[in-house]
Order: sequence, then structure tokens, then C-alpha cells
Amino acid sequence: MTTRHVPDDWTDLDTRAVDTIRVLAADAVQKVGNGHPGTAMSLAPLAYTLFQKVMRHDPADPHWPARDRFVLSCGHSSLTLYIQLYLAGYGLELDDLKALRTWGSLTPGHPEYHHTKGVEITTGPLGQGLASAVGMAMAARRERGLFDPETPEGASPFDHFVYVVASDGDIEEGVTSEASSIAGRQELGNLIVFYDHNEISIEDDTNIALSEDVAARYEAYGWHVQKVDGGENVVAILEAIEAAKAVTDKPSFIQVRTIIGYPAPNLMNTGKAHGAALGTDEIVEVKKILGFDPEQTFQVDDEVIAHTRKAVERGEAAKTAWQAEFDQWAADQGEHKALFDRLTARELPQGWTDALPSYPADPKGVATRKASGEVLSALAPVLPELWGGSADLAESNNTTMKGADSAGPKAAATKDWNATPYGRTLHFGIREHAMGAILTGIAMHGPTRPYGGTFLTFSDYMRGAVRLAAVMGAPVTYVWTHDSIGLGEDGPTHQPIEHMAALRAIPNLSMLRPADANETVFAWRAVLERQTVWKTGPVGLALTRQNVPTLEGTSYEGVTKGAYVLADFDADAAGDSSDNKVILMASGSEVQIAVETKALLAAEGINARVVSVPCLDWFEVQDADYIASVLPQDVQARVSVEAGVAQPWWRWLGSAGRPVSIEHYGASADYKTLYEKFGITSAAAVAAAKESL
Amino acid sequence: MTTRHVPDDWTDLDTRAVDTIRVLAADAVQKVGNGHPGTAMSLAPLAYTLFQKVMRHDPADPHWPARDRFVLSCGHSSLTLYIQLYLAGYGLELDDLKALRTWGSLTPGHPEYHHTKGVEITTGPLGQGLASAVGMAMAARRERGLFDPETPEGASPFDHFVYVVASDGDIEEGVTSEASSIAGRQELGNLIVFYDHNEISIEDDTNIALSEDVAARYEAYGWHVQKVDGGENVVAILEAIEAAKAVTDKPSFIQVRTIIGYPAPNLMNTGKAHGAALGTDEIVEVKKILGFDPEQTFQVDDEVIAHTRKAVERGEAAKTAWQAEFDQWAADQGEHKALFDRLTARELPQGWTDALPSYPADPKGVATRKASGEVLSALAPVLPELWGGSADLAESNNTTMKGADSAGPKAAATKDWNATPYGRTLHFGIREHAMGAILTGIAMHGPTRPYGGTFLTFSDYMRGAVRLAAVMGAPVTYVWTHDSIGLGEDGPTHQPIEHMAALRAIPNLSMLRPADANETVFAWRAVLERQTVWKTGPVGLALTRQNVPTLEGTSYEGVTKGAYVLADFDADAAGDSSDNKVILMASGSEVQIAVETKALLAAEGINARVVSVPCLDWFEVQDADYIASVLPQDVQARVSVEAGVAQPWWRWLGSAGRPVSIEHYGASADYKTLYEKFGITSAAAVAAAKESL
Repeated sequence: MTTRHVPDDWTDLDTRAVDTIRVLAADAVQKVGNGHPGTAMSLAPLAYTLFQKVMRHDPADPHWPARDRFVLSCGHSSLTLYIQLYLAGYGLELDDLKALRTWGSLTPGHPEYHHTKGVEITTGPLGQGLASAVGMAMAARRERGLFDPETPEGASPFDHFVYVVASDGDIEEGVTSEASSIAGRQELGNLIVFYDHNEISIEDDTNIALSEDVAARYEAYGWHVQKVDGGENVVAILEAIEAAKAVTDKPSFIQVRTIIGYPAPNLMNTGKAHGAALGTDEIVEVKKILGFDPEQTFQVDDEVIAHTRKAVERGEAAKTAWQAEFDQWAADQGEHKALFDRLTARELPQGWTDALPSYPADPKGVATRKASGEVLSALAPVLPELWGGSADLAESNNTTMKGADSAGPKAAATKDWNATPYGRTLHFGIREHAMGAILTGIAMHGPTRPYGGTFLTFSDYMRGAVRLAAVMGAPVTYVWTHDSIGLGEDGPTHQPIEHMAALRAIPNLSMLRPADANETVFAWRAVLERQTVWKTGPVGLALTRQNVPTLEGTSYEGVTKGAYVLADFDADAAGDSSDNKVILMASGSEVQIAVETKALLAAEGINARVVSVPCLDWFEVQDADYIASVLPQDVQARVSVEAGVAQPWWRWLGSAGRPVSIEHYGASADYKTLYEKFGITSAAAVAAAKESL
Repeated sequence: MTTRHVPDDWTDLDTRAVDTIRVLAADAVQKVGNGHPGTAMSLAPLAYTLFQKVMRHDPADPHWPARDRFVLSCGHSSLTLYIQLYLAGYGLELDDLKALRTWGSLTPGHPEYHHTKGVEITTGPLGQGLASAVGMAMAARRERGLFDPETPEGASPFDHFVYVVASDGDIEEGVTSEASSIAGRQELGNLIVFYDHNEISIEDDTNIALSEDVAARYEAYGWHVQKVDGGENVVAILEAIEAAKAVTDKPSFIQVRTIIGYPAPNLMNTGKAHGAALGTDEIVEVKKILGFDPEQTFQVDDEVIAHTRKAVERGEAAKTAWQAEFDQWAADQGEHKALFDRLTARELPQGWTDALPSYPADPKGVATRKASGEVLSALAPVLPELWGGSADLAESNNTTMKGADSAGPKAAATKDWNATPYGRTLHFGIREHAMGAILTGIAMHGPTRPYGGTFLTFSDYMRGAVRLAAVMGAPVTYVWTHDSIGLGEDGPTHQPIEHMAALRAIPNLSMLRPADANETVFAWRAVLERQTVWKTGPVGLALTRQNVPTLEGTSYEGVTKGAYVLADFDADAAGDSSDNKVILMASGSEVQIAVETKALLAAEGINARVVSVPCLDWFEVQDADYIASVLPQDVQARVSVEAGVAQPWWRWLGSAGRPVSIEHYGASADYKTLYEKFGITSAAAVAAAKESL
């Protein structure tokens, strides 16, 4: 299994380079005293082959749109990637490898997007990389459809592949099971996954927890499955890649049996080689076996680095050849080129907001999920970059743009959905976690703007993906409907209580809970404007199932600031002083309650201001003057009204304020009964206001 | 596919009963105006066969320990269960079915444990039921091992089966993929899953999002797989169950092809039959087809209910027969019987706390994860009901009891782990979500006490399961280690920032973050005492990777109250007044910083009290006097110190208080550098105290 088998054009320098990788991996972890050497050692031939022999990429231009993507799903093996970036000439140098896992280095514990050139996506939480790669492969197809739909397969300047290296951990995580099933359904021929089947994880031999036939499972998903028996068999790896590329209607799964930590004589094939330094004695043995000087560390022969840095020239040549194709395409397809330029700049088209609906004030009102659906349908012709769908709740989440085709092969079509490869309605099935990761992958891949919907409660299922999107600042939008007990009869398992708090707690995720139809329009507008800058991060829209009144006084400017005065203190109120003033803060469907409460309080001689709070995350970063203008220091009587736990509101309530909240689970009944029974009412808000005064 | 095929002993009354189910399901949803009729109609023969012909159960004693368990993983089809409970005589009556999904009824939207007799587990969030059923099957084996290890298979009074009905949604969710892989590895012959393969979900034909060969996937997991072509084929269903029972070393997967909504002439086999009332016209047609009076609603013939209620007699007879076996076992195995009684009462053994370690004050200290591991090993011989493991992080989470065997078949053994079917170390693989659901299933099944570990960050992956455990109040313990930036080099993807806030927000989940080794011991003690009452809910322990000093003054009583004075104001401080007093609140590894800060402030003439806050959830439910004794009203200068977002602390900080917190993601470096760079230091706490004064 460890016999080297290399192709005819493979040189001794290639072999030396591969062995250099192993030695660098062992040395780098040893130097800092912690990290993951084993997989970087055993994957050296595969990673080297991909970066030096297979992938189309240009180290000088890591953003080349037609580059093949590389996703290291097993992010803990970050050295697998860092060493390739170093060898290929992406800007990492030996000192960077020596600084592994230390403050400020370009080589943190796990690969971080925005931080190290050539890292396509932040990985580490297992499963996310592979699942997001499915999104990348889907994005590649959609972008192809937007920019160059007519050119035959394989002949477009936008055609390329997505390569993934995944570990046992990635394979075990449910998110990859979900995403791989979707990839099979989607017939993603541009996706090639290597499963590093080393049968070792942290608890050592995976047999203790893994007995399934993984390859058979991927066959069941409809993938093209191959096996390579031995990580040193470069010939078989290359043949498998060629075969994978030739199958254009199935994603490819290549199971490579490797020996973790190879060739460490005592530690290879053990859990100890996975996540700890090998120790100097063992590293000396490795160096002896590979013909390196056991006295030296970080030994890289000049000829080796000169050899591997030829990747820069090859990249330049490939880019030049591609540029000619691209220029030809640009000349032939002016309209597509204009779209490409606009999207690449993340610009919105002139006058796009003219398409947005607006709603007259109306006590009966509209559900905010419905308004959201109307926004999406209105924007469909204006913003072709906008696309998305639902985890099997399209009609409930109102995520389908009217008249849009579904994204998928013809074989996916049903009597309700017309599927075409370049379609824009996404169908995730009941797979929220994969949806989250796929949306991230779409955003990572290119300039389109993805969204995805489920019930707000089931944001829990996708939280791993949401967090990673937030870490990267990926501009994706979650359409989370049925955002409170207001969903009614489905009961406590479906009613969000803690979710607004739990999601607001995530740094760099913006949670919007619009009060009515117009605030929903403003929310979408604000999100799309904001996401013209990539790093601004994901956004969650929390939307009602039930109708809410369309209110007077809502404002786009106000929404962009996160909170604003919807209805101010009555200027001419009798006995106006800070002693009888109270501020009523509310979000979403509870803003109407704050409005009612203001009127009730006025009747009792209490002067109230209603502050609509669509986004606490945006409010808290406003300047102090603005915050004080909305929540003046001299009015300490404050009430928050939100049908969820109060945790996020205390900061703004202060010592005197009182929340109207729900601190327990919901129940199954019609929503009006629930609001009454659980005390999310204007009567409760009046009582809280009096207590606060 | 809809041809009826029934066994010889099946009577016309049985057929009428099955058709009664369909009519009741349609009527109940129609009456309330919302709900899920379609699956309840098409699963009528299967559900009826299980409850009336197959399962060993006693409607008079829903807690009979040897009953077969029934898990309706597709909880939205709650009528499937409610109608069986009604027919079999569990206490539901026709009026309860008429009250479907209304306030206070016994028939809420989704089946709720603790609420409706005969409901084994709350379901609704898809995938959780099937995944928890894997835990039930594992628990059945462990309990068997604790109470009756010697009796041959099938001959023990504790032997029984776990039946599951799962839908397309359950099958698509990643959590079932994870759990099903574990079930295969564990060779759970006592688990029988029916996959209701109706090819319809909310977005109609599942072909739009599901093309995999599900049966082949389950074969790849190592399950025994069978297919039944048609939900009306009772003969085939019965044969498949017999075959499933006969295979004792594999879980069974029985794929039943049904037509959702059968026999509704216009709506069957459509998404519309899934989640909405059929409409009166369609229901009239159904009644005509089935020979019911189209003018009547909720029509149940007297002979039908008399026939089905014979389940009570059969249950009594089965129970009586079993009781003889049980009494014989009790007589033969006094020691096991004593254990059975103690565990069933959820009592802890006399003097069990004597086994707990305690630690001398020590500035170098111990990591709290290590102390937790020592608690577990110390309790191993005293509490056989305690068992658990990790999602492939055993050594990092310190979740393995010294000398304990692993739970699993011989075939799962590796050189590091000795697996036996009655072992107590659990190996979940890298499958956090399934771990969560399995732990819940273990707690639902019987009286053992399960725990499971991963990194705190990856609580995100298991959040769906954690929430459902909290909804039910299930007594499980999560060992979440590496609880802050203190984990160091693994960087932002692995460093919890928002997790304490996000988990504290979940109602009925207690989050403990002990300050040192002794508080860790007290935390485990408090949790085990607390969970002598079932409904008290799950607990998460947030534990450090890094060493923390073992402090003076920690207290068991204090831990049980959630927060307590660790080091009080200096009584003899010069110029003692509320003007120079500040309260320093901290949790976990930051309590040491609060202690340092007190000394620094004293040197500046500021008198500080240190409050250790191991559990905000427990503190906030203390009486007002206790809360005021810890946080006196006249000291409004307050500082919180926690290496995470401040959100949960504002309630206790009030208007004058200041948090020392981290509101952004972490970084990859050694932990001491990170604490310095991110300002989680006594210097920052001193500055915050001054600002607060």
C-alpha cells in the first residue's frame, strides 16, 4: 500500500518535493509543539499531484475566475494546503511555515479565507468543506448559465473543476451525507472528491465507530465511485482523475487508502500521528528513511523549490491561453460581459430599487414572509444574480420567484417544477445543514447572491454552517420564516423561543426581524446594498407566518440603522417630563403591540415613544449620538416586546427596564390564543411600562 | 400498490378499523383547519398492524419497562399515533381527536412526551426520532447488561424491540445518516425502522431533491434491508417484521412504498395531501369509497372500538405473563433487582459522594476537563448507570472512565478499545448531532444516565438534538470541553465565542461553567443530584482545555445556587461605602481573573466582591432575597468577566455595569497571547470597574 508508483514524466525532483512536504509537516508541528502532521505526510503525493500536475490555477492570481477550486475539507491538516501554497509560489515562504499556529502568522491552525492567499474557504469544522464544495460546483454551473449558456460543455472559459480532499471525519458528519445526496441529484460532473481513507481518527482505528461501506454509500447517492489502493500510487490517482473528469453527469468520489503519518516508523497508522507532534526521535527516523539530513530542520533543497515554483510559469501560461478565450467571449457576448463585470464588482444595477413593492398602511396587513416572496419575485428580472430556494418549505417560506425554473438536470423535473441546469430555484430537500453549507459555497465561488429558507426553529440544524459563513463574512441570506409562537398550531417543537437571541449572539451575522411588509422590503434592500461588500457577512431574515398590520412611519433609513423612532413622544402631552416617559422597543410582529401600547399609555397620561428594532446587530454599532437620539439617557423607563427570550434586550433595558418576553417553550394552538396565554400583549406591555417608570 | 392483502386471521373489523383511521385523520384535520392528514391515512394499515398485531405493550401501563417502543419519527403525522392510542385504549377519546391542535388538548400538533400517555418521545423536528431510537436500542442493550447479563438472547424479561416509522424527511436529514451508521456499527438487532417511502414531501414529488437509492444506502451502513411494495399489503408487512426480528445482529430497514393520502381520489399522491386539510368535498369522496356515511364526521362504529380496545386485555395478559418471568428473575437475581429498583427510582446510592475527588488550592491548578475525567473515573464503580463517550474526542474531552469497556459488538474492537455489547464507553465517531439524539434516546428509554462529549464549539452541530432534549426535560449531560479562546492554537473555527450565550438562551437547558477543579466536582455532583428528577432537563458542562488555578472558597452549595460570593468585600477596607464598592462576576476560567482583579482594586482603594457564576440559569431562578444577597441593590458598579459575548450578562450588569468580553472571533495562537491580545485580563477588569463606579 506504500509502494511508489509514478508516471513516466515524474522526476526525482518530484519525488524529492513530495518527501520534502512530509519533512516540513513534521518539522512545523514539532516546532510549535502542536498541530496535525500525520495527514499532511500521507497526503503529500495527492496534494502535490493536484497542485503541480492537475489543477488549472495561477499562483499570481488566486482570484482568476476560471481556476479549479481546491477545498481542504479536513482543515486540521492545514499543512497539506500551506505547503502546496508555499511550493507553488502563492506567497507563503519557509518562515511562514515556521510560524505555524502562532499569533499573526499566515499559517493559522486551520486555513482561513481572507487571511492566506490561495485558501478558497475556511475549513476545520468537519464536513463543512465538502458540503460547501457542492455549493461551489452548483455555483459554477449557474454562473456558466449566466455568462456563457450556449457554448458546448468543456469549451467555455468558465468551465472548471472543484477538487475536495475529505477525511473520515468529513465522511461521518451528517452534513456531507445531505450535501452528497444533493450532489448526486444535481449530477454535478464538475465535482471531484478524494476521500482520504486512512482508517484512523482521534480515537485511533475508526473500526470502533465506522463499519459502513462508504464507497457503496456514495454509489447509492448516484456518484461515480473509484478506489485507489495506496496514497503513493500517483499513477492510479492520475488515472482516477482522468476517469472522473470524463464522467460529466455524476460527481466523482475517489477513495484513496492511505497510511496516516507514513513513513514515520513507530507512529504511522496510529491516532497519535493525527493530532500531535511526532517527537524529535521519530522525526529523525523519518528524515533518515527519506534521505534527509536528520540534523537539519525545514530542509528544502534549492532545486526542489525552483522545480515546484515552475507552477508560477505554468499558471501564467494557462492564464494567458485562457485570456484569449475569455477575450473572444467578451467580444462576442457583450451583454454577458457587462453582466459579468457588474457582478464581479458586486454592483447593483441602476434603478434596481424601482422594482421593489411598497405597501399602503393597512390594519389587516400582510405576513412578512409573503412580502419577502413578493420582493423576490419583483427582483427576479432585475437581479439575475439572486437565486435560492428552500429546504422543502418553498410554499411556506415564500422563497420561489414567480416563473423561475428550478436548478437541476432534466431528470430532476417533476410535474410541479421545471428543472434546467441553469435554473435558479434551489431544492435542498429536508437538509437544512447542507443548505447552509451550500449557500456558503455558492458565495465563496463567485459573484452570485444565494438565499435559502427554512423555519426559524430549524436554523438550529444549520448552525454549524451559519457560523462558518459568519466567520468568513460570506454574503448569504437566510430566509427564516415562522419566527415565533405566531406560527400557531405546530407547537413547541416548531416555535422559536431562544432563536433570535442565539443567532444575534453570533458575531458578524446580522439578524433582521422586520415589523411589517414595508420593513421587509427595506430589509431586503438594505441587505442587498450591504452585501455589495463581500465581507459584511451573512444575514438572517426572521419573518412571520401570520399577517401583521402594515404600519405608518416605517423607514428605509431607519432599518439600515437597526433601530429607529417609529412613533415619537407626544410633544403636546400634558405634564411632559422624563418622569412620565417610557420607551417601547419591539421587533417584528410585536411592533404592532408597542404601537397599541403607546395609545393605551397615552390614555393613562404616560408618554411613550415606539422604537422599531429590525436589527439589534446593526443598532449596536451606530455612533453614540445616534444611539442616544433613539434611547435618550434621561428616559430610563423602557420596555422591550419580543415573542422570545429577553436575553438580547437587557443591554438596552438597563436597570429600570422591563422585558415583555417568553422564557419557556410554546404550545400548540392558534396564535392569537398563544399571544394571550403567554402574555405577549399590550396589556402586559402597559404593566411593564408602569413597573419600569 | 394499493391492493389489500391481509393475513388469514385478519377480520372485516380489522379492515373497518383501518378505514376508520383514515376517516378520523381526514375529519380531525378538517375540523381544526390545519394539520397533516395524508400520511396518517396511508400509514393506517402499518400503524394498526403494529399496535394491534405486533407490539408487546399494555395500554394500562405505558411505563412497563419491557414494552416495545414505538417512535413516530415523522411527528407531523401525529394522528398516526394519536389514533392508535385512541383505538388501543391509552386514554385518548374521540373528543381528544376532535380537539386536535387546540389549546390545552391532549392532541397537540406534534406528539409531546409528558403530555399524552403512550407518547414515548417528542418528535417533529425531522430526523430526531429515528436518531433517538438508535439510542433507545443501545440503552435496551446496556440495561439488559446491567440487570440480566447472563440470560440467553430473547429469553430475558428485558428483551424487546424498538419500532420506528420514518418519512422521506427523516431519511434526508443528516442526523439519521449519522445515527444509522452508528446503528450498523453497533449491530442493533433490536431496532426495526419502517421507511414510509411515499415519494411526496412538501415540495411535492421528492424526485426534485432526492434521487439516491435509500435502500442501498442502508445496506452500505450494514443494515438488514427489505422492501414492501404497497402500504395495504399487511401480509408483506408482517412477513418483513418476522424476518427483521430473526436477524439479531443487524438493525432492520423496511422500505414500504405507500401512496400518501390514499384513498383520497384527487389529492392522494400529491404534496397537498401532506400538510393541509383535504376539504369537505374530498373527504366526502373518501367516505364514499370506504363505505362510511358521508354526512357524518368522526364516525366510529361501536364494534370497531370494542374490537380495537381488546388491546387492553391483550396487554394485560402479556404483562401478566411477563410479570411471572420478571418475578422469577427478581427472585434469582437479588442484586440486579436492587440495582433495577434504585435506578428505576432514579436514586443515587448511599454515600456515593464519598467517591468524589477533591483538590487542594493550587495556583498551577488543573484543567477542568481533566477534573471532569477524574470525577467520571471515580464514579465508575459507584454509579453503573453512568455511561457515555465522545464524538471522537475521548482523550480531549476526558470522557472515558478508566478501565471501562467500550459498548459494541466484538467486531468493533480495536487495539485501543475492548468492545463488548454491555460495555459503557460510547464511540459516536465524528457525529455530534447523532450523539445528541442518541443521548436523548438513552434517557427516554430507561433509567441509565448518559453523557457525551465534544468541543463546545461543536455544540452547534448538535443543537437540534439539544433543544429537543430540553423541550422534554430529558436528563442528559453534555461534556463540552475547550470552552473558549483558552483552547489556543486551533483558532477561530474551534474557539467558542457566542456559545455560552446561545446555549444559555435555550429554556430548560442548564449551562455550567465551573471555575476550577473543585467546582467541576461540585458541578457533576449537583447535576447528578438534580437529575434524580427526570424532567429537570439536560445540562451542559463547559470545561477548559488549559489548566486553571484551584481556588480558595469554592462551595458545593454555591454551585447549586448558580452564583455565589467567592471572595467578599473587605470588611475593614478604608473608606468603606457603596461608592467604592464593585461586584466582579465571572465564570469558568475567568474567575481567576476576577480574583486577581480584586487584589489590584484593593491596592487602589476600591473594595471588590468576587462572585463565581458557574450557572446563570440556576442563579436566575433563585429567590429575590438570595439574588439580592449576592448582588445587593446598593452596589450598582458591576463587572462581568467571561471570554465570550456579553449578551447574557447585561441583565445582571444593569445600567452602570461593564462587561469584559469578546464580541468577535478568536485567532490561532497560544492561549496566553490570546487573552492578552483580546483584553480578557485583570487590567481590563480594573478599567471596567473604574468605569462602572
